[in-house]
Amino acid sequence: MLTLDYTFMLSDAVPGGVTPAAWSGATDAFASAHASVTARHRSGELGFFDLPADASLLAQVTDFVARTRARYRDVVLLGIGGSALGPVAPRNALRPPQWNMLDDDARERWPRLHVLDNVDPVTIVAILGRVKLPDTLFVVISKSGGTAETMAQYLVVRERLVAAQLPLGDHLVFVTDPTKGALRPIATAEGIPALDIPANVGGRFSVLSPVGLLPAALVGIDVKALLLGAGDIVRRTATDRLAENPAGAFAVLQWLADTTAGKHVHVLMPYADPLRDIASWFVQLWAESLGKAHPDGRHVGPTPVPALGATDQHSQVQLFMEGPLDKTVTFVAVGTPLVDVRIPAMHADVPDLAYLGGHSLWELLNTERRATAGALASRGRPSATIEIDTIDAWHVGGLMMLFEVATAYAGALYGINAFDQPGVELGKQFTYGIMGRPGFDASRLAFDALPRPSQDRRI
Amino acid sequence: MLTLDYTFMLSDAVPGGVTPAAWSGATDAFASAHASVTARHRSGELGFFDLPADASLLAQVTDFVARTRARYRDVVLLGIGGSALGPVAPRNALRPPQWNMLDDDARERWPRLHVLDNVDPVTIVAILGRVKLPDTLFVVISKSGGTAETMAQYLVVRERLVAAQLPLGDHLVFVTDPTKGALRPIATAEGIPALDIPANVGGRFSVLSPVGLLPAALVGIDVKALLLGAGDIVRRTATDRLAENPAGAFAVLQWLADTTAGKHVHVLMPYADPLRDIASWFVQLWAESLGKAHPDGRHVGPTPVPALGATDQHSQVQLFMEGPLDKTVTFVAVGTPLVDVRIPAMHADVPDLAYLGGHSLWELLNTERRATAGALASRGRPSATIEIDTIDAWHVGGLMMLFEVATAYAGALYGINAFDQPGVELGKQFTYGIMGRPGFDASRLAFDALPRPSQDRRI
Repeated sequence: MLTLDYTFMLSDAVPGGVTPAAWSGATDAFASAHASVTARHRSGELGFFDLPADASLLAQVTDFVARTRARYRDVVLLGIGGSALGPVAPRNALRPPQWNMLDDDARERWPRLHVLDNVDPVTIVAILGRVKLPDTLFVVISKSGGTAETMAQYLVVRERLVAAQLPLGDHLVFVTDPTKGALRPIATAEGIPALDIPANVGGRFSVLSPVGLLPAALVGIDVKALLLGAGDIVRRTATDRLAENPAGAFAVLQWLADTTAGKHVHVLMPYADPLRDIASWFVQLWAESLGKAHPDGRHVGPTPVPALGATDQHSQVQLFMEGPLDKTVTFVAVGTPLVDVRIPAMHADVPDLAYLGGHSLWELLNTERRATAGALASRGRPSATIEIDTIDAWHVGGLMMLFEVATAYAGALYGINAFDQPGVELGKQFTYGIMGRPGFDASRLAFDALPRPSQDRRI
Repeated sequence: MLTLDYTFMLSDAVPGGVTPAAWSGATDAFASAHASVTARHRSGELGFFDLPADASLLAQVTDFVARTRARYRDVVLLGIGGSALGPVAPRNALRPPQWNMLDDDARERWPRLHVLDNVDPVTIVAILGRVKLPDTLFVVISKSGGTAETMAQYLVVRERLVAAQLPLGDHLVFVTDPTKGALRPIATAEGIPALDIPANVGGRFSVLSPVGLLPAALVGIDVKALLLGAGDIVRRTATDRLAENPAGAFAVLQWLADTTAGKHVHVLMPYADPLRDIASWFVQLWAESLGKAHPDGRHVGPTPVPALGATDQHSQVQLFMEGPLDKTVTFVAVGTPLVDVRIPAMHADVPDLAYLGGHSLWELLNTERRATAGALASRGRPSATIEIDTIDAWHVGGLMMLFEVATAYAGALYGINAFDQPGVELGKQFTYGIMGRPGFDASRLAFDALPRPSQDRRI
């Protein structure tokens, strides 16, 4: 099971929270948001809702993996944004820690999975220098085929494969739009396998498409269970009754906290190392979906902040406890650990050590989570807790779908389009202009017209 | 050289920035903050200023490494907060990417460096299962010896070493207070080597003490150069003339942006993979130092947010461009790359690919940084750029010291104590209470008196 506990989000329990009046008054706003999202889904716009039940996409993934299983020792993913954050989160949640450092036996002959999510040459040289090309598969993920960073990586890799006289179709696989974009015709012309990102699935909502499923399946993750867990959330969020819809409650409470209680910063803080990158993935989802110019001229969108318990108790929690009253914290708790370690009783004469003996590490970790939530509550700072029974594919699929559905609702509540990202275009155009891409002379001129760095403002 | 360019922080260049009047009017406020910090330093309170010139601490580190060189293949660091963030940032900046995955030759016989920065049993079991205890050194970092997470890890590790009948003094080294705390007497009684964290150096300001220097030296980083680069910043920040003090300008502009221009979120965004964890380290420094209850009852402190270019252009930059006008972005630029890769000219008929050929990856990365700063400026969103010539120990030491000195100034400007963290005490007490530590019954009762999770607020 996956549950959302929002006791500490309401002001009758925690003074800084959302008032019970605002919460019960949001029933209609949520029903309306739910109707809007449902209508967009029915019109065919929001394909991410359909991914858990898409047997054909799943078959693309499982067929490819069945056909190539045991051929590769290294998989290198070329992608950025959702095309990297999506695949990384399941790998780190559902494979043993530091997967890439394990030997072949410990990985049960599944390959390592490297992710090139940037164009820093230091990283690319290091990774290409380490893998053996004949044993390596490069997964190129770009829906449009126009992502500059991913395309630059692809050109570098392609040149290496050609130089090594390796058949491109054996060492490249594309994940891209079914019909459009720059990569699809190359795949067709050159016999490079290509899996589909449905036209109605955007990058940051694509983890349950082949974008996330192919890398997951390649390293042995149970992708069917991922989809089943996500499907369970689709089922549970069919209702427009707020009190029964966990994604609805999450979205409405964060939106009310932002717009009625001044909580502009939304922290996601799992207490489990394997879920660390779920927080990074959530940051993109929440930031890029909700950070928008509103049609009425306002600029809206909470700032998501990733954290990790207990680690961040020694970093960000001081700010959460005593800084401005502008934050919510959502904890992610795990009911049952995969493994636990007893803390031995030693140094009985040292008070700082003696009390730990006989407890377990997992007990300490979860006690700290409850203590931190309690301490925040004592200071009037609201929090919510999402609990999953255990860290497995079913729960991780559900957790990610919960946040995706909540993001769709939140877009409707804020009154903006959660599914575009117009703000990043200008930077792309400036890049094209500076790089001399044909057709972008005007962007170059606009860039050159900006104020110049000034020597007397440089120290 | 390390320079700060703040052209785009001022409103005559970028409308949302700090007004030139506020900036020039801050000269006296800075001189006063500088005097306050200098006085605290002279009184012996702020030991971090003295670390670059502390030959004795450096000798503790270099002697230990000279004595033990080539004895260990794995170093496992037990620490949390500054004791982990500090060591991780130099390792990832100054050693080749994915250091721990390299073989012994590629590491030039320097050991791997694992960092246990949490008590999740999944991670601890994985790392302890992978290293060979006879070839492993455990570095236990806790100034007080009272850090629950680090002490729990220590007890687990100690039990394993005892069970393996290995001499503790050969496999443990403590980094702790020179005289006080729980670890120092254990070291003395059992012959475990122990290096000093000076009493006047706090955890998040300790990277240039043995906390950061010992792990760095153990993996072959030039720690003398780290200190020299930091020392150069100490020298450059001796002046109280704002226009000449780079840490002063950074602190004053962020403070003015927060308090006069509504910029409550401070993003740090290096455009270089090796500097990614400098941003995580900065988050602790800025959040834990400045997030405070002000003596006058206000709650102050900007929210630091880590980002990475170009990666985050596909994640957070939409929010930075179109979301609320509540952010500053500080870019970190690198003048000369350690290595570069030419992007080959291919697919001349595909416009999305053709323009990339002939450029280099490093050129693309830096073009994107300039384009992003320009796009933000075009939308009235302020930014600053710190440029370092290259990524080496001298510049990384300087960069980290720049932020530490700036944090000290910012504390004085905000009117709070940047060197304590009273807000985290309550959570610790609740943890002690729940764990049954003697003397914390009242904390247990206070925790039990908090509102209980309510079944009808759980979905």
